[in-house]
Amino acid sequence: MKSTILVEENKENIKFQISDELIKNVEQLIDSKNDQATLDLLNEFHHADIAEILEELNFDQAIYVIKLLDSELTSDILMELDEDDREKILKNLSAKEIAEEIEELDTDDAADIVGELPEERQEVVIAQIEDEEHAQDIKELLTYDDHSAGGLMAKELVKVNENWTVTQCVREMREQAAEVTRVHSIYVVDDNNKLIGRLSLKDLLVANTRANIKEIYIPKVDYVNVHEDVEDVAKVMQKYDLEAIPVVDDNQTLLGRITIDDIVDVIKEEAEKDYQLAAGITQVVEADDSIFQLTRARLPWLFLGLLGGIGAAYIMGGFEEMLKEHAILFFFTPLIAAMAGNVGVQSSAIIVQGLANDDVKGSINNRLFKEMLLAALNGIILAVVLLLFIWAYKNDFFTALAISVSLVIVIIVAGLIGTFIPLFLDKRGIDPAIATGPFITTSNDIFGILIYFMIAKMILGI
Amino acid sequence: MKSTILVEENKENIKFQISDELIKNVEQLIDSKNDQATLDLLNEFHHADIAEILEELNFDQAIYVIKLLDSELTSDILMELDEDDREKILKNLSAKEIAEEIEELDTDDAADIVGELPEERQEVVIAQIEDEEHAQDIKELLTYDDHSAGGLMAKELVKVNENWTVTQCVREMREQAAEVTRVHSIYVVDDNNKLIGRLSLKDLLVANTRANIKEIYIPKVDYVNVHEDVEDVAKVMQKYDLEAIPVVDDNQTLLGRITIDDIVDVIKEEAEKDYQLAAGITQVVEADDSIFQLTRARLPWLFLGLLGGIGAAYIMGGFEEMLKEHAILFFFTPLIAAMAGNVGVQSSAIIVQGLANDDVKGSINNRLFKEMLLAALNGIILAVVLLLFIWAYKNDFFTALAISVSLVIVIIVAGLIGTFIPLFLDKRGIDPAIATGPFITTSNDIFGILIYFMIAKMILGI
Repeated sequence: MKSTILVEENKENIKFQISDELIKNVEQLIDSKNDQATLDLLNEFHHADIAEILEELNFDQAIYVIKLLDSELTSDILMELDEDDREKILKNLSAKEIAEEIEELDTDDAADIVGELPEERQEVVIAQIEDEEHAQDIKELLTYDDHSAGGLMAKELVKVNENWTVTQCVREMREQAAEVTRVHSIYVVDDNNKLIGRLSLKDLLVANTRANIKEIYIPKVDYVNVHEDVEDVAKVMQKYDLEAIPVVDDNQTLLGRITIDDIVDVIKEEAEKDYQLAAGITQVVEADDSIFQLTRARLPWLFLGLLGGIGAAYIMGGFEEMLKEHAILFFFTPLIAAMAGNVGVQSSAIIVQGLANDDVKGSINNRLFKEMLLAALNGIILAVVLLLFIWAYKNDFFTALAISVSLVIVIIVAGLIGTFIPLFLDKRGIDPAIATGPFITTSNDIFGILIYFMIAKMILGI
Repeated sequence: MKSTILVEENKENIKFQISDELIKNVEQLIDSKNDQATLDLLNEFHHADIAEILEELNFDQAIYVIKLLDSELTSDILMELDEDDREKILKNLSAKEIAEEIEELDTDDAADIVGELPEERQEVVIAQIEDEEHAQDIKELLTYDDHSAGGLMAKELVKVNENWTVTQCVREMREQAAEVTRVHSIYVVDDNNKLIGRLSLKDLLVANTRANIKEIYIPKVDYVNVHEDVEDVAKVMQKYDLEAIPVVDDNQTLLGRITIDDIVDVIKEEAEKDYQLAAGITQVVEADDSIFQLTRARLPWLFLGLLGGIGAAYIMGGFEEMLKEHAILFFFTPLIAAMAGNVGVQSSAIIVQGLANDDVKGSINNRLFKEMLLAALNGIILAVVLLLFIWAYKNDFFTALAISVSLVIVIIVAGLIGTFIPLFLDKRGIDPAIATGPFITTSNDIFGILIYFMIAKMILGI
């Protein structure tokens, strides 16, 4: 790092802002094949920023940059790209070139990249990796489920034997630490590579150099099993404020470690998935995906909505005889459907979030009883407003009463359905998040309209 | 830590499961005033687990446990409790007792707790803090906005002067490190306390002890301004995979640091807030909140839905003359409203998420054009299904055509509204997340039904 850059860098705002000017500048340098100037310009940026720049270039330009830069840098850039863009670029690199990128990556990122390759290419690429141990580690990581601790962990970690001295430990660690991007904890193992405790760098820093690891290590160590679900790992790390956690197999053998930055990604992805499910989008998509991808993600729930609407029309057709005397009932069906949908979405969202945070306690019955009280309270407040409005407007108390009373019942039933379905799915081991959004809206629309006409008919004595 | 516990602890699953048996056991020990046995039992658990146990006890029992345990432990427990529960407990502690808890906490947590106290109590408690520097730090932190980097940072950090030697540095650091829970980076400052670079513990571990800090530090250091919005800090830390970031004022003076575990909380809270907004819940609530709190959070959006429904009824009333000949049009209004709502929610959700992730690029016009194509594609597919269904069912091609063509137009308009409103709000500096859920659903219901009847009327030539 040149010290002349220091002052400039320290004055830079941390927020990198991509500009049209910068992109034009990069494009000109590439098109004029001015390799040295391109390198000088790009090397000033963080790899995450270069990835953003690449996404603005055309494909040939991007490939040109990837082949120009050091593989130490490009491997990090590749990890920052969108999966689609990465796939396109990897298709244009030889197995040897991909292997070179992979050599530079930590095992977890390396395994992710290899895992994205077509299966027939995976072995070819792994065979080209020169570091035999790295290749073995990647192969091992590929065997774990993506959604398990094993699929998230890296093999890189710093571990010491309980029988070493502090001096011996520091010597060994210097070597290991060169491989590890961030040292959080030093894991202590016995002669069989079983995890028995930990040391912090801080402890080591303040320890007497002649001490034995056995004397100074902390036997209380948190860990997760390699088959643990990543969402549970995320919960544990958040609850206990851990920045890294070791991963062991069923025999307590130390296999790898998971760091908090990977957990941040898990939390974000999970939140985005739930948000999109609640909004009626079945696959994780981004605003910049193709129209075809977006249609595939959006059409299924819309189709469900269409069926629901046809069902509602069918039900209303069944009450056709009421049209003549009580046309006004039909005018309020969108209101009834909207209220049933909104209440259902509200109650299911609260339950889904509560389940995700493990703070839904008590029995299903208590939960339903509470929701019933809550829905009744909301329903009565809203129904009184509606009653006064219709009564004033149409001067027909009984119709106003019929619509308002139906509204209260519809809201209560909608709240109960919205509470019950996610709890039921969760008990059955199904992700309750699918019960939010269009699913609840659609079923509540149909039930709502049916209940509404039945109650109105009863009250109006038709 | 006694080594006899070692084996047991290592065999424990990391996931602590609270059981009725355990709670009963704790309650019995408390009620029999068996202090030593209570202590022995509880001291085996992590403070986050004890917090969970406390939430199951009645209030007197919880206070008893808090007063029994060491303030080193209880301060951590307090931080893990729900804000409501913490408030109740703090009310029952004297200013002196609270000050003792606060002495044990890092400045960021301490400031959070003091900030939650009633204003008149804050000064009394701070005055009782014995460590003058700690009290000053807390006072400083209380001056920053909750949603700024200053409101999130801790004053605890490890910093060294560029003019020190490695040996001098290690000596000073041992002292500082005792105060800091986790050492991520060592910040390097000049004589004016200006941040000029960083060192990693790893670097220090492998450096020659006689070297000067000036020679070995890394001048490239990421940092944020103390007034930066926390969501922007979260984005920066995620993008650059940082585990801690120093906070400086406008003069580059080092003020504190933010660690990734606080950022994890920010990300989770933000995701929960957006999710609840999309579900029509105006305040962050939990399933276990009181019925009054839940009603206050849920009623506003339901009221909006009610107004929307009344608006829709009013519009339908305006087309009353069509009832006689084309009653079927009225049967399909819930379908039209549902589709308009669903499409609007889908498109707004994608835009809101894209804006949150900074990946909505290009002009608003391009974005609207893409959504129009997408909505038209979805709309035509759905309309063809609907057309065939109604035609087969009612044997009236023109009515089927009128309803289906209206559906396409309604879906396109709904998609455009769902895309435009969040983009518009974002440009105006308003959180676009409020434009999801009931807001979009309600406005699209009304527009949808209006457009539907107008187009149907035109096609049927009434």
